[in-house]
Amino acid sequence: MEHIGRHVWAIAEGFIPQSSTGPESMASHETACILNTGDQDAHVEITLFFPDREPAGPYAVTVPARRTLHQRFGELADDGSLSVGADYASVLVSDVPVVVQHTRLDSRQAANALLSTIAYPAS
Amino acid sequence: MEHIGRHVWAIAEGFIPQSSTGPESMASHETACILNTGDQDAHVEITLFFPDREPAGPYAVTVPARRTLHQRFGELADDGSLSVGADYASVLVSDVPVVVQHTRLDSRQAANALLSTIAYPAS
Amino acid sequence: MEHIGRHVWAIAEGFIPQSSTGPESMASHETACILNTGDQDAHVEITLFFPDREPAGPYAVTVPARRTLHQRFGELADDGSLSVGADYASVLVSDVPVVVQHTRLDSRQAANALLSTIAYPAS
Amino acid sequence: MEHIGRHVWAIAEGFIPQSSTGPESMASHETACILNTGDQDAHVEITLFFPDREPAGPYAVTVPARRTLHQRFGELADDGSLSVGADYASVLVSDVPVVVQHTRLDSRQAANALLSTIAYPAS
Repeated sequence: MEHIGRHVWAIAEGFIPQSSTGPESMASHETACILNTGDQDAHVEITLFFPDREPAGPYAVTVPARRTLHQRFGELADDGSLSVGADYASVLVSDVPVVVQHTRLDSRQAANALLSTIAYPAS
Repeated sequence: MEHIGRHVWAIAEGFIPQSSTGPESMASHETACILNTGDQDAHVEITLFFPDREPAGPYAVTVPARRTLHQRFGELADDGSLSVGADYASVLVSDVPVVVQHTRLDSRQAANALLSTIAYPAS
Repeated sequence: MEHIGRHVWAIAEGFIPQSSTGPESMASHETACILNTGDQDAHVEITLFFPDREPAGPYAVTVPARRTLHQRFGELADDGSLSVGADYASVLVSDVPVVVQHTRLDSRQAANALLSTIAYPAS
Repeated sequence: MEHIGRHVWAIAEGFIPQSSTGPESMASHETACILNTGDQDAHVEITLFFPDREPAGPYAVTVPARRTLHQRFGELADDGSLSVGADYASVLVSDVPVVVQHTRLDSRQAANALLSTIAYPAS
């Protein structure tokens, strides 16, 4: 299949809930789901934006040809730049077209909540 | 009414929760809602993408003229290619323009959660 | 302000939960939120699509100039064409550009769930 | 990074739940997440629309260069124009391109619900 999507995507919402209820599988988290439908690996650089300081990154991830990667933001930045319970946003830049969808699972209270949206396809 | 929408749609998120709480009507599931507004039947081929293996499908569904089909992903692939509790993504290709929206109901915890987004209209 | 948006919008998802938990303000419902930013009234015709029968409508609503209307689908069709607990979809056609967003509140279980997405802007 | 996005965005849904369950961090609220990726500050004017009266605003907010602002609607209008438990909608106009995403947290019942969608990019 050919490459579907765009090279640049933006997600204006970002917030990793600071606590969870239930087993590890229900842990609060936030994900950028990246789909690479084509025959070339996608090299994706993710930059994080904040309310009160300069951007962090870019952080590099690879989505192999004909694969999807559901990248958790909390596992992306191991340099401490991303704090739970704090607002952020993100931009993803890929060398081949991909599709990006943004999802959060929030289990701070006794039953989890979900949100999801296709990201903004910039170019 | 004329055919509204696009021929190719992508959904980068995909995850069927592995358990449910409540009666059968509240079972966890994930759906591709397909709307065919026009006077010709839509023949739709759905391909599934995974993090760690080659794509599966395509699986063929028909959305009759002037009808909507809310296709559950868990009922699409009867060849065992789709596992609950595992990440996936999907691409839908239709011979006539359709509109696609993606929805999940997650009832793993005591009160259900929902997410929904219009899919990415590729071409 | 000028008219913002499109003339034709599609919502492929549609389902009014068949029960509710809590007071009347938490009743399960599904809404088409229509925003008319301009100086002319918007005359909107809503057609409903089903899995197994011909479309119903169109049902006419008016969104006055510089107003928003959050139209509940359950209050739209007083001819019995729309059943709770059954799949449907919808198309909205307006004589002036408007913006449409689709929202569901599901309170079948003890704590409500929500979903929302901008509808598909067709033309 | 260059400015990503559009100058005008619309959000047709709007409703601030009139009560909350849990600690202050779980208070019901509704947010316009604005991402400014570029090197110039974004001056954004937000106009609120209602079902039954003239629009309010515009209210001015600034999103500094290379920053994100998650603006709560309930903290935007200190002139009493926005009531909890009442329908509204909004338009955001920025002097440089930005990306806008709309999110609600509803904790009226014992476990919170979430919704989110990329706003409608008008121009």
